[in-house]
Amino acid sequence: MAVITGTIERRTAGFNDIHDITGDVSNLVKESGLGSGTATVFVTGSTGGVTTLEYEPGLVKDIPEALEKVAPMGKTYHHDATWGDGNGFSHVRAALVGPSLTVPFRDGRLMLGTWQQIVLLDFDNKARSRSVVVQIMGE
Amino acid sequence: MAVITGTIERRTAGFNDIHDITGDVSNLVKESGLGSGTATVFVTGSTGGVTTLEYEPGLVKDIPEALEKVAPMGKTYHHDATWGDGNGFSHVRAALVGPSLTVPFRDGRLMLGTWQQIVLLDFDNKARSRSVVVQIMGE
Amino acid sequence: MAVITGTIERRTAGFNDIHDITGDVSNLVKESGLGSGTATVFVTGSTGGVTTLEYEPGLVKDIPEALEKVAPMGKTYHHDATWGDGNGFSHVRAALVGPSLTVPFRDGRLMLGTWQQIVLLDFDNKARSRSVVVQIMGE
Repeated sequence: MAVITGTIERRTAGFNDIHDITGDVSNLVKESGLGSGTATVFVTGSTGGVTTLEYEPGLVKDIPEALEKVAPMGKTYHHDATWGDGNGFSHVRAALVGPSLTVPFRDGRLMLGTWQQIVLLDFDNKARSRSVVVQIMGE
Repeated sequence: MAVITGTIERRTAGFNDIHDITGDVSNLVKESGLGSGTATVFVTGSTGGVTTLEYEPGLVKDIPEALEKVAPMGKTYHHDATWGDGNGFSHVRAALVGPSLTVPFRDGRLMLGTWQQIVLLDFDNKARSRSVVVQIMGE
Repeated sequence: MAVITGTIERRTAGFNDIHDITGDVSNLVKESGLGSGTATVFVTGSTGGVTTLEYEPGLVKDIPEALEKVAPMGKTYHHDATWGDGNGFSHVRAALVGPSLTVPFRDGRLMLGTWQQIVLLDFDNKARSRSVVVQIMGE
């Protein structure tokens, strides 16, 4: 058994920018040399999220539209009263989607469905650099 | 330390069909012979989800009603324009609920609450076979 | 590789009471003596949730307001018809937020962002004691 820590860096545009990071996670698993285990994908920061999605242009628009019903971008948040940075919606969306995802792998391959990609969602209200930790554990 | 991979197969009806898979996960942990560790429950495919729920007939109706507010079944999605398969709501619901859950176990038993079951949610718009991977790691 | 099980006990007020448990999880990781691995934070019970959040008074109000749109507290739920305990909203919120979170650590430190705290959310409709299991695995 071993633990191997990888990191993925992405430049994101904010405002529900969704990135397919499956290839990066998959490569880190291959480079680890491990056969069987789990890859925990964790986004650093409180305005990002991680989940799986069929990564295609339609759903990349549908996800933000659904979240608009729960945490609209035009609303004033208590958070904005605290800091005045105008990204209350970003924090609420990120907390609900969640920052972590654990994906099993076997024979060095992630056990995803054919149309199931690992995605990073950046909910912030500005462009930024994002770090995603990939903690690979297995044998 | 060891890694043991189990699989649960279920025939699902789609349209927010919710299955209690606690017994299956619990049996896989017992069969692993491990005492202490984690069971990562991961649904393969981009229209399914996994979470915990008190599995009783009322909540099995309440969960779809809540998700109807976020991703209504009657709405037209950008995804449907891409593929024409009419399951945009399924993908959005699945991405928000999430495909993975990690449950600790000790003395060979899952550390769940008395009324807390592990559930598989099938959001697709047709009946299908579902595979759930259970990655058991521990000692 | 080792598995170390910790527990956090908290007295909660219910009704979307949000607690910062980062310090407790961080201490358990330090006490484990492990350098690198994952901490799986799992709330026992079907009316609690775990996620990350910038823990500040504004967002502690914003999160319940967002969930009010998905699972309002004033609505009658099918669950309430089954048990009559009036906490249908609690179960729905808990299932959607999810009970588990897996956080990587390295050099004995959780790999969180500066403004990213691990929070326990109690959605129940009464004060209670909550147990959170922290399963620490690594080397």
